[in-house]
Amino acid sequence: MSEKTATTAESDEEPTVGTVYLIGSGPGDPELMTVKATRLLETCDVVLHDKLPGPKIIDSLPEDAEDVGKRAGGERTSQAEINQRLVELAREGKDVARLKGGDPFVFGRGGEEAEYLADHGVSFEVVPAVTSAIAAPAVAGIPVTHRDHASSVSFVTGHEDPTKEESAVDWGALAATGGTIVVLMGVGRLPGYTAALLEAGMNAETPVALIERGTWPGQRVATGTLETIVDARDEADISPPAVTVIGDVAATRERVLEFLGNEYDGEPAEFEV
Amino acid sequence: MSEKTATTAESDEEPTVGTVYLIGSGPGDPELMTVKATRLLETCDVVLHDKLPGPKIIDSLPEDAEDVGKRAGGERTSQAEINQRLVELAREGKDVARLKGGDPFVFGRGGEEAEYLADHGVSFEVVPAVTSAIAAPAVAGIPVTHRDHASSVSFVTGHEDPTKEESAVDWGALAATGGTIVVLMGVGRLPGYTAALLEAGMNAETPVALIERGTWPGQRVATGTLETIVDARDEADISPPAVTVIGDVAATRERVLEFLGNEYDGEPAEFEV
Repeated sequence: MSEKTATTAESDEEPTVGTVYLIGSGPGDPELMTVKATRLLETCDVVLHDKLPGPKIIDSLPEDAEDVGKRAGGERTSQAEINQRLVELAREGKDVARLKGGDPFVFGRGGEEAEYLADHGVSFEVVPAVTSAIAAPAVAGIPVTHRDHASSVSFVTGHEDPTKEESAVDWGALAATGGTIVVLMGVGRLPGYTAALLEAGMNAETPVALIERGTWPGQRVATGTLETIVDARDEADISPPAVTVIGDVAATRERVLEFLGNEYDGEPAEFEV
Repeated sequence: MSEKTATTAESDEEPTVGTVYLIGSGPGDPELMTVKATRLLETCDVVLHDKLPGPKIIDSLPEDAEDVGKRAGGERTSQAEINQRLVELAREGKDVARLKGGDPFVFGRGGEEAEYLADHGVSFEVVPAVTSAIAAPAVAGIPVTHRDHASSVSFVTGHEDPTKEESAVDWGALAATGGTIVVLMGVGRLPGYTAALLEAGMNAETPVALIERGTWPGQRVATGTLETIVDARDEADISPPAVTVIGDVAATRERVLEFLGNEYDGEPAEFEV
C-alpha cells in the first residue's frame, strides 16, 4: 500500500494501514509474558523482534518472524531502519507485533518508535510487560522495595547513549535518595558506578546482588557489598545480560533462600547479547 | 495439618506443607496478567486476594476466593493476620495463590510476606507482574525512560508508612537525579510533594501527568506542569487509584495521542480502594 493510499482519508474506501503493537516480552521466561502479548504474537500478520526476548521466547516465534537484532556484516539493524520497517509494514496493511525484551518503555527505545509511528500517521498500541529490573531480583528473592529498607527504587542503565559526552546518570543523587538502585545491563561498567557510589558517600557495606539471565535457564546470582561485588562478579564469572541490585533489600535473598521455590537452573542457552 | 507434622522431616511420610505463590495481578487489565499468574489461579487450592487487583480481575476469581481486603467492622485484615493465614493454609497442605495488585515486590509488602513464610518454614514462589508504575503511563502514551529525556526512573509511594515520624522520601535527591519520578498512590498528597520538588529547584514547567485507573475501564488522564497539576487534578476530579508521572517524558503523550490505540474507556466500575 502506497503512502498516498494510506493517507487518502477522504476516499470512500477506508485506508487500510495496519496497527503496530509495541509489545514487551518480559524478562525471558515465556510464562512471564502477558496474556495479551501471547495473543498478539498469534494474531498479528508479522512479528519483528530483536535478540533481547531471550532464547526460549525467540524459539517459540513463528518461522517467518523478522529478526532485526541479527547482525548483517557485523552491523545490527539500526534504530532508524527498524522505525522505517515498522511504517512500511503497517502501510502494507499489516498488523505488526514489534516484540522487545523486557518492557518496551523501560530503556527499550519504545518511546522513540512510538513517536516515529505517530509522526508517520501509523496507529500503535503499547503492551506493557514485566520488567527484568523488578523480576530478576524478585525470582532471586529480592524485593526492590520494602517498608523497612527502601521507600523508593530507581532504575538506570549501565549502557549509556555513546553519543553523550559524559554520563547523564547522577550517581551521587541516586545514592542520596536512600532507595534501592537497580542497574540494567550493568555488568561491564560495574567497577565504574560502584566507585562513583562509594565516592558519593554510600556505605561500603551496602548489600549488592548481580542476577545473570534472570528467569532464563541457567540463571545465576552473585552477592557481595558495594566494596566486594566486583571481585564477586569476577569470581563467579557473571556475564551479560545481568541486573545489579544495590541496597539493603539485596540482603533479603540470604534470609529467604532456603524456602524460595523459584528455579531457573539448567543449562544456560548459548546466546549473544 | 499440624505444625508438628509439617516439620517431621524424619518420618516416612513426606510432610505435605503447601506452597504459597506471591502473585502479582498487574495493573488491572486481565489481559496484562502473566500466563503464569492465570495458570496458578486455576490450579492452586485456594486464592487469597485484596482489593487492589481491581474489579475485572476480582470478578473473574473463583467464588471461594478469600478477600482479605474486605473490611470487617470497619477494619481491613491486618498484615499480621494475612501472614498467619498464609502459613495456616499452607500447613493444611494447600497450595495458595496470594494475589496482589501490581507487582508483589513493588510497594506490595510481598517482601514481608516472603520473610514471614521463610521464617515459618513455608516454601514460596514469586510471580512478578507488570507494575502500574510503568503500565499506567505507557497506555497513556508516556514512556518512563527515553534516550533524549530521562536516563533513569524512580518509583516512590505517596502513601508512606504512617508509623514513620517524618517522610522517608528525599524529594530533593529525587529531583537531583534528573530522571523521571513516578509516584504510586499519589493523588492525595500531590500538593505536598509537588511543592517539595519545586522547593528543591525542579523546573516549574516540568510536565506532569496523572493517570487514574490505568488499564481499567474508565481510565482517565490529567496533564499539566509541576506548578499547575494540582489545579488540573481538581478540575478533572482525579481520584485514587492513580499514578503520577513527573518529568519531560510526560509530554510525549501530547505528541503521540492522535495515533495511540490503547483504549480503556467505558463506565468506571464502582470501586473502593
